[in-house]
Amino acid sequence: MTHRLSRRIERLTSSLIRDILQITQRPGVISFAGGLPAEELMPELDFGACAADSRQYGPSEGEPLLRELIARGLSGLGLRCQTEQVLVTTGSQQGIDLVGKLFIDEGTPVLLESPTYLAALQCFRVYGAEFHGMPVQAEGIDPDALKAAIVRHHPAFVYLIPSFQNPSGCCYSDAARRAVAAVLDETGTPLVEDDPYRDLVYTSCDRTPVCAYLERAPWVYLGSFSKITAPGLRVGYLASSPALFPWLVRLKQSSDLHTGRTGQAWLAHFLTSSDFGKHLAHMNGVYAERRDTMQTALERHFSGLADWSVPAGGLFFWLRLVENTDTLAALKVALDHDVAFMPGEPFFPVTEQRYPALRLNFSHATAEKIERGIALLSKVLGECAVTAAG
Amino acid sequence: MTHRLSRRIERLTSSLIRDILQITQRPGVISFAGGLPAEELMPELDFGACAADSRQYGPSEGEPLLRELIARGLSGLGLRCQTEQVLVTTGSQQGIDLVGKLFIDEGTPVLLESPTYLAALQCFRVYGAEFHGMPVQAEGIDPDALKAAIVRHHPAFVYLIPSFQNPSGCCYSDAARRAVAAVLDETGTPLVEDDPYRDLVYTSCDRTPVCAYLERAPWVYLGSFSKITAPGLRVGYLASSPALFPWLVRLKQSSDLHTGRTGQAWLAHFLTSSDFGKHLAHMNGVYAERRDTMQTALERHFSGLADWSVPAGGLFFWLRLVENTDTLAALKVALDHDVAFMPGEPFFPVTEQRYPALRLNFSHATAEKIERGIALLSKVLGECAVTAAG
Repeated sequence: MTHRLSRRIERLTSSLIRDILQITQRPGVISFAGGLPAEELMPELDFGACAADSRQYGPSEGEPLLRELIARGLSGLGLRCQTEQVLVTTGSQQGIDLVGKLFIDEGTPVLLESPTYLAALQCFRVYGAEFHGMPVQAEGIDPDALKAAIVRHHPAFVYLIPSFQNPSGCCYSDAARRAVAAVLDETGTPLVEDDPYRDLVYTSCDRTPVCAYLERAPWVYLGSFSKITAPGLRVGYLASSPALFPWLVRLKQSSDLHTGRTGQAWLAHFLTSSDFGKHLAHMNGVYAERRDTMQTALERHFSGLADWSVPAGGLFFWLRLVENTDTLAALKVALDHDVAFMPGEPFFPVTEQRYPALRLNFSHATAEKIERGIALLSKVLGECAVTAAG
Repeated sequence: MTHRLSRRIERLTSSLIRDILQITQRPGVISFAGGLPAEELMPELDFGACAADSRQYGPSEGEPLLRELIARGLSGLGLRCQTEQVLVTTGSQQGIDLVGKLFIDEGTPVLLESPTYLAALQCFRVYGAEFHGMPVQAEGIDPDALKAAIVRHHPAFVYLIPSFQNPSGCCYSDAARRAVAAVLDETGTPLVEDDPYRDLVYTSCDRTPVCAYLERAPWVYLGSFSKITAPGLRVGYLASSPALFPWLVRLKQSSDLHTGRTGQAWLAHFLTSSDFGKHLAHMNGVYAERRDTMQTALERHFSGLADWSVPAGGLFFWLRLVENTDTLAALKVALDHDVAFMPGEPFFPVTEQRYPALRLNFSHATAEKIERGIALLSKVLGECAVTAAG
C-alpha cells in the first residue's frame, strides 16, 4: 500500500520519542522528558466576553488587536515590525511547518545548530531538507563557521534558537548575535529565528533578536505564547520581512484557514491586563527556584558523570555525558525506575555530530521530585555507562 | 528572491478570491460569496468548567471524549470506525492539508469532481497534484467514467463531496454511492470523502457516507463542526482506514502538535447536551426558509438567465449561466452595486471543463437581503452577458 503514498511519508522519522513520551505520562513517573510548563502556574482562562465575538470565521492573519500587540512587543525588542507583518499561528509548531512549506523541496539544504529542536528537524525532514549542522558553543555558533557553511552549502535558510536554545540552553552573546547577523546580511541568507523561551529568564542576559540586527537578509521570527500562558490554547505567531509575508499568509490559509479565535481574544485581553506582568514574574520566580534545585541535585549526583552549564533561562539542562552511553537504552532502564528524561540523539541534525547527552526539563516537576528523580537518574546512567564500557 | 523559495510557492494560485472576499466584508455589501453560517444562529460558547483542564499540552489525536463521540456518530452512519481511527483537526481544512501531505508529490495524479471545493484544489495544487476532473451530474459522478479515469490516470486518491457538494449542491443517489464504492474497491483506489454539510439537510435524502460501502479500498473521511456550531473554534476531524491512520497522526503532530483543547472540550459537552438537537433543528429550519426564499427570488429574476437545481441541503445554489459570461468581470460590476457572489471559474480542476457559473450562499443573508440581492444580481449578470455577446 505504501507505494501509493507521498515520498514525504518515507521521511517521517520513527515515532520512538512520541511513544516514549506517552509512557512518561504514566502516573507515578517523574518526568524530565517533555517541555511542559507547570499547570499550577498557568493563568486562569476566563473567556467571558471574548466568546460571543469569536464564533464566526476570522481573518487568516489573526485577530487585529492581538497582531497589533505582538508587533508592538517585537518593535520594543528592536525588530522593525509593523502589524501587517504579523501572522498568528496555531502554536509555534505551525510556524515551523509554514517555514518548511515556504522554503523546502526535496534535497533543499538547511543550516541548523547542532544539537537543535527535534520537532523542527522532524518537520523540515518531512519536506525533504538536507541538513548541515553547526556546533553550539558557549556563546552560540561560530560566525566564521557559519560563513564557511553558507558558502559551501548554499542553504535556503538558517534555523537558529539564539535565546535559551533547545536543547542546549545556550544564550548567544551580543557579539555572536551581531556577527551572525552580519554574515547573513553579507550572504543574503534568510534567517528563521525560533524564540519561544525568551520571556522565561532567570539570570539577566542579552536577548535582542538576531533578526533585529539584519539590514538586508530576509527573515522569519517565530514566537509562542505556550510557555508563558497555556499551550492547550495553541496560539503562537510569526513575523517576517515584507517580501516573504504574503506567501506565509497563503500557506497558512491553505493549512487551517485561521487560528482559533477564542484563544486569540483571550490572549489580547490577558496581555494588556495588569495580571500578565505579575503572572510572568511569579512563573519566572518558581522556575528559577526549580532550576536552582536541579542544579544543586546535579552537582550532588552527576559530577564526574556529565558536563553542563546552568541555563540563564528556558526550560532545560543539557548534560553531555562523560562516558559513551546508549541513552535510548538508558531511557528504557530509567522508565523501569519510574523516571524519564529526553535522550540526546534525536536532537542532532547529522549523525557524525552526535555525542552522548540528555535533556532535562526543570519546569514541570516539583522540587521534591526533582531531587528524587535526579538521584535515581544518576544511578541508572552510572550503570548504563558501565554496561556500555563492559 | 523567489529563486530561494520552494517550488510549492510557484503553485500558490492567485489570491484573487481572497482579495475579493475581503471586499465583500465591507459594510453594506449583500454577500452571497462566502460559505458563512449565520452568526445569530450559532450556539452560545460557555466554556465554564472546560477551561481549567484544557491549559496543558494535549494528545495529537485529540481529546479522548470528543474522539469517542465522533466515532460513535460515524458508526451510526454505517462507517466501521473505532475511536482509535479518529483524529481531531484544526478545522476540516487541516484534514484536507494532511491528505495533501500524505498522498501528493509533484505530478501525483488526483481525481476530483468538476466543479469542486476551491480550497481543496488550492491546497492539493500547492503539493503539486495533477488534476483530472469528472463532471458532477444530477445523481453524482458517473461510475463508469470514474472507472475509466482510474484506469487511465492511476490517481493516488479520489476526492469527493457526495452530500450537498460544494459548489454544485448535488447529493449523490444511493445507487451512485454504492456504484462509486464498488469501483474504488475493485481498483483499490483510496477515497477521500469530504462531508462538512451532512447535517444541514432541508429535504430528506440518502446521505450514507460512500466510505461506509467500502470493503477494501483505503479511505479518509473528513468532517467539520464549523457549519453546525462555530467555525471560529477551528475544530474538525478525520477518520481513516487503519493503515493510513498512524501517518496522518504524525503529519498532524508535525503541523501543529494538536488542536486547541478548549474548543474540543466545549464541543464534547455541547454534542452530548439536549441543546444540540434543538439547536440543529432550529438552524435547519431557518436555513430551509432562506433556501426557499432564494429559490423564489431566483425563479423571479434568473429564469432564462441560468439553470439550477434546488439543493436538498448544504449552503449553496449553483447557477449555470445560459450566456457566456466573464463572471470575474461580473463580480467587479456587482461589487459596485454592493452585492457579491462567488464566480464559478476557480471551482473547476481543469480549464477545459469550465462553464460560466456562479455560486450563491443562502445561509448568511436575511430574507430581505436575499430578495434585494438576487434582484440586483440578475441585472448585473444580464448586462454582463450582453457585454460578452457584443
